[in-house]
Amino acid sequence: MSEFDLIATYFTWDTFGLDVDYASKQDDSDNQQLSKVIKSVGDDAAVLSLPANQQLVTSIDTLVSGVHFPENTSPFDIAYKSLAVNLSDLAAMGAKPEWFTLALTLPEIDHEWLSEFSKGLKQLSKDANIALVGGDTTSGPLAISIQVMGSVESGKALYRSGAKQGDNIYVTGYLGDGALGLLSLQNKIEINELDAEYCHQRLNCPTARLAESELIKRFASSCIDVSDGLLQDLSHVLSQSNEKQRYDELSNELGAEIDVSKMPRSDALKNIDTHHALELALAGGDDYELLFTIPRDKESDFLASNTKTQYQFTRIGEITHGSGIVNADKKPLDYKGFNHFS
Amino acid sequence: MSEFDLIATYFTWDTFGLDVDYASKQDDSDNQQLSKVIKSVGDDAAVLSLPANQQLVTSIDTLVSGVHFPENTSPFDIAYKSLAVNLSDLAAMGAKPEWFTLALTLPEIDHEWLSEFSKGLKQLSKDANIALVGGDTTSGPLAISIQVMGSVESGKALYRSGAKQGDNIYVTGYLGDGALGLLSLQNKIEINELDAEYCHQRLNCPTARLAESELIKRFASSCIDVSDGLLQDLSHVLSQSNEKQRYDELSNELGAEIDVSKMPRSDALKNIDTHHALELALAGGDDYELLFTIPRDKESDFLASNTKTQYQFTRIGEITHGSGIVNADKKPLDYKGFNHFS
Repeated sequence: MSEFDLIATYFTWDTFGLDVDYASKQDDSDNQQLSKVIKSVGDDAAVLSLPANQQLVTSIDTLVSGVHFPENTSPFDIAYKSLAVNLSDLAAMGAKPEWFTLALTLPEIDHEWLSEFSKGLKQLSKDANIALVGGDTTSGPLAISIQVMGSVESGKALYRSGAKQGDNIYVTGYLGDGALGLLSLQNKIEINELDAEYCHQRLNCPTARLAESELIKRFASSCIDVSDGLLQDLSHVLSQSNEKQRYDELSNELGAEIDVSKMPRSDALKNIDTHHALELALAGGDDYELLFTIPRDKESDFLASNTKTQYQFTRIGEITHGSGIVNADKKPLDYKGFNHFS
Repeated sequence: MSEFDLIATYFTWDTFGLDVDYASKQDDSDNQQLSKVIKSVGDDAAVLSLPANQQLVTSIDTLVSGVHFPENTSPFDIAYKSLAVNLSDLAAMGAKPEWFTLALTLPEIDHEWLSEFSKGLKQLSKDANIALVGGDTTSGPLAISIQVMGSVESGKALYRSGAKQGDNIYVTGYLGDGALGLLSLQNKIEINELDAEYCHQRLNCPTARLAESELIKRFASSCIDVSDGLLQDLSHVLSQSNEKQRYDELSNELGAEIDVSKMPRSDALKNIDTHHALELALAGGDDYELLFTIPRDKESDFLASNTKTQYQFTRIGEITHGSGIVNADKKPLDYKGFNHFS
């Protein structure tokens, strides 16, 4: 099977209402209000069009077998997770998913594997309304690189760098479930069957918080997705907000106070030792929840805007004056986040 | 060394005149005439802005150690080639390079290796005026995925699909040098030192034909970059142009007649057995030259426009009525192109 047949068989599907391949009617691409796929898979590159008032938001993430997922992970889940972690980056920027490309490195052509992988990719791409517009398949040790492209109204992207002293710190969903799922798969902890199933699902098929992001972006001063553990990702918000403030107004160092009793934990985490659960929630990684800061004067509007949607937003602390991250007793919280090379 | 330090040390450099990180002056992004990096490396995603009359052109390619380059290839050359093959895809579309992302999978942190890799990437990115705006580093078997993004005036992208009967077929540069370089490195052929040096350079540091592309796009009816061998890539032009014509005007099958005596061959190829040289030029792969078709009524203007630039364009044949690719004696030319999975 050639690379071309492989793409046609496993990576070509209806792009759900998008107008694909406008090559033969090129003159209608002016003054458009919608993003469009002008040329999709099958040429040297894809050609895409964004409306004039939109900016392009893009991120790339690679998942390597044995590093980012256990080697026995199902192909469906590998595909799902590879796209989900990238969509999570778009959510963290307040961007709407538009297109993605896939670079797939495979040790061999295994049709059963490819068929399941294709199903996982297709399902999430349809759910998130994002079109596969290009890619590359090659032989080598199993690895998946996905680059997502999204759109945001010009000037409206959410950055890590906007947090200010006094802002409240929120997270979506629950923290620590993915890390608990990994420990369970590695037989490093014993949990009940129901909890294991739930945590494995959270580990393998994380939810990119795209819907929540649309609401959050209207109020938040900063946002990041929690992929390396809450403390490490919060430290990025602090350091980048510090840099920005130094540049803008020569302010002092920012820190954060986290009320660890408020950390949102699922039943699975509540069923294990409290100290261990907290460690996983603070530093486990693989959460793909959003961590964001809401200025105090916008808090009531933010909460009111969620009345109908009822997304799970948990206030876990606030941005403070003073370096470092501390708990409610002002003691340093210094669990190390996940580091791919440590 | 953390992933963050690694990026700061090896993948952060001046983006040569581009205005980077416009996050704090977001209101000037309306009505712009130039593409801009609004937010570069360091957030969950990059934020980029294209002028309203431009379309986005994007392509992703992965290079795996031992598959796309010999394992002892220098890190400088690995970086150079990884970016060059992607730039070649932009050239084939008639697009101007704007930005790229890098997903780098490394077995270990080797500072000497990274320093040389960084030099190669930086040199070509400066030469091609393309900015590194994001990436991902992870541990695993050595592989490099680069996604390039370029811009093209709306409706002006060059496709594989526009060739028509009677169009003349041209190529840039020389064909077969990369393939000869690989054979020489594998000790499968003996060539003199000077030729070997030249061919290894062509294999490891191919030239993306970006400057030529700017001229070609004004006249060509179709274009592709020759990465899998001339015959295989020409067959893509034919099949996609056939599809397009069937859709548009129910025309007959397209074929091509190639005058193999016209195939542009370097001195290195002229110094080996003629039959073998022709095989490499027709089916070797790793050329990264442009193959394009020029309608007859545009040919004199096309050639005249090259008077000053004197780019090497060689007419090697023409698009015919009748399926398949034949030589000047109407005999089928059917060397198999390089197939990553065959």
